[in-house]
Amino acid sequence: MSLITVGTMAFDAIETPFGKINQIVGGSATYVAYAASHFVKPVQQISIVGDDFPKEEMEEMKKRGVEMEGVEIVPDKKSFFWSGRYHEDMNSRDTLITDLNVLADFDPTIPESYQGAEFLMLGNLAPKIQLNVIQELKKRPKLIVMDTMNFWMEIAMAELKIVLKYVDMLMVNDAEARQLTGQFSLVKAAKSIMEMGPKFLIIKKGEHGALLFHGDQVFFAPALPLEEVFDPTGAGDTFAGGFMGHLAATNDISFENMKRAIIVGSAMASFCVEKFGPTRLKEITRKDIDIRIHQFKDLVSFDIELI
Amino acid sequence: MSLITVGTMAFDAIETPFGKINQIVGGSATYVAYAASHFVKPVQQISIVGDDFPKEEMEEMKKRGVEMEGVEIVPDKKSFFWSGRYHEDMNSRDTLITDLNVLADFDPTIPESYQGAEFLMLGNLAPKIQLNVIQELKKRPKLIVMDTMNFWMEIAMAELKIVLKYVDMLMVNDAEARQLTGQFSLVKAAKSIMEMGPKFLIIKKGEHGALLFHGDQVFFAPALPLEEVFDPTGAGDTFAGGFMGHLAATNDISFENMKRAIIVGSAMASFCVEKFGPTRLKEITRKDIDIRIHQFKDLVSFDIELI
Repeated sequence: MSLITVGTMAFDAIETPFGKINQIVGGSATYVAYAASHFVKPVQQISIVGDDFPKEEMEEMKKRGVEMEGVEIVPDKKSFFWSGRYHEDMNSRDTLITDLNVLADFDPTIPESYQGAEFLMLGNLAPKIQLNVIQELKKRPKLIVMDTMNFWMEIAMAELKIVLKYVDMLMVNDAEARQLTGQFSLVKAAKSIMEMGPKFLIIKKGEHGALLFHGDQVFFAPALPLEEVFDPTGAGDTFAGGFMGHLAATNDISFENMKRAIIVGSAMASFCVEKFGPTRLKEITRKDIDIRIHQFKDLVSFDIELI
Repeated sequence: MSLITVGTMAFDAIETPFGKINQIVGGSATYVAYAASHFVKPVQQISIVGDDFPKEEMEEMKKRGVEMEGVEIVPDKKSFFWSGRYHEDMNSRDTLITDLNVLADFDPTIPESYQGAEFLMLGNLAPKIQLNVIQELKKRPKLIVMDTMNFWMEIAMAELKIVLKYVDMLMVNDAEARQLTGQFSLVKAAKSIMEMGPKFLIIKKGEHGALLFHGDQVFFAPALPLEEVFDPTGAGDTFAGGFMGHLAATNDISFENMKRAIIVGSAMASFCVEKFGPTRLKEITRKDIDIRIHQFKDLVSFDIELI
């Protein structure tokens, strides 16, 4: 099965209590691709970069089965740049700089070779762009998942609500779920979001794990308790990449399989935060991932029958 | 097996976004007893009250197998009184009034009939009192668990650290674990606390669940995602009561059984928050509890073998 992932490819500058890096590749689609390509090939990338984006990074992704035909390279322009500083709790951060650069003109077209993909991951972008992508696909994917953020709720809520009607799953964090619905209780927020369109919902709670909702069903995936979160940048997108990678690889969108996928996503995210940027996602092997997934199993397994 | 529980029996006045109650019974030992008595008899209560504490409440507890010989009733004095107001997130609250009343003179003695108890739950009290109780026991219990709070870290840290050397498990919330150790990472805080004495540690994270640590082992119990947390007062003590009740009933302090106990505690806490005070703990049946425990199982169960 193939997976289309739409999002940013960027440069980040990151400062955490543990260190600082002035330039490293980032962007939602970069993280999704590095995570998903551990499970499924091809990953069909849709993004836009300037001619400053490293050719070696593109080659590295291609080697991993990431197709680049949908990545527009704009000559004489710069790639999207984000700079941020994390607070000690690592759950909050200040954005220092956002230079849209090429992203200001992002108007993705779907390469013919991508048509027919069964899985679509819409990264956090303007709702209008997300909708365009859905409408450009000749055959509706089996599963369309979208991310979004508070920014779009503030300036484009009406458009966002339209896109929600076209997708199968929304994947947001707890603050975003609350803002979207005006409900403090995540259970109430979930019900409200599922009435807006998506039949499935994932609410990410960072170090507190993630919740998967579908109708009256709910599943909780913990985050692995880590000694150190070195850099949380990209953890949410990496989670999405692992989640979609597993679903696409198994071609099974049952609730049971989504449970597995959310654990895979959580495992990938737990690697992501160990070093700056997507560094760890490039280092790890399938065996590392399997060991990590079993740690998640051990973390929550208990034998209830004896009670 | 018998369980001694030491702590407060009190009156509370509670205000939440959902309602207000001017007087309801509360206190750590009250919640522990109501929760634990669903699983084990006798629960041997050690506390102090004024003559205003309702006789019917004492009778209700006795009917449930809670022994009252260790509860001192001080004539012409008032019971401990606490009043608080919860914020919308229900994770934070303002204490409005704390009237120690009889608690100012609490110097518990252990009734002869309690001697030989295998399980001891030391509620949040002055470390000096906690230590006295341990030293008054002629035979060391099989498992000693203690709670504490930031207040004692601020005014009696040296004494608190002495008590820690005598107990098997510390049970605190995340903020308290951080304050006790100066470590932000809960994994690092856990290691540091286990070097202070306790071989086991539970870190409660409220709506985000609880972590159990022992050596290099870690287990995570989620909190049940609830539509509404009506009143969180006593949830932590109810958790402790369910945890100790299960351990005492099964007389098994293995890590595997502690996992079950932490799920039992989480289930009991999920009932506690549904109504004001300990109301729900008196209403529920063993069948309600079993159903709730299975909801926890469903919440986190996934079949990893297929990955």
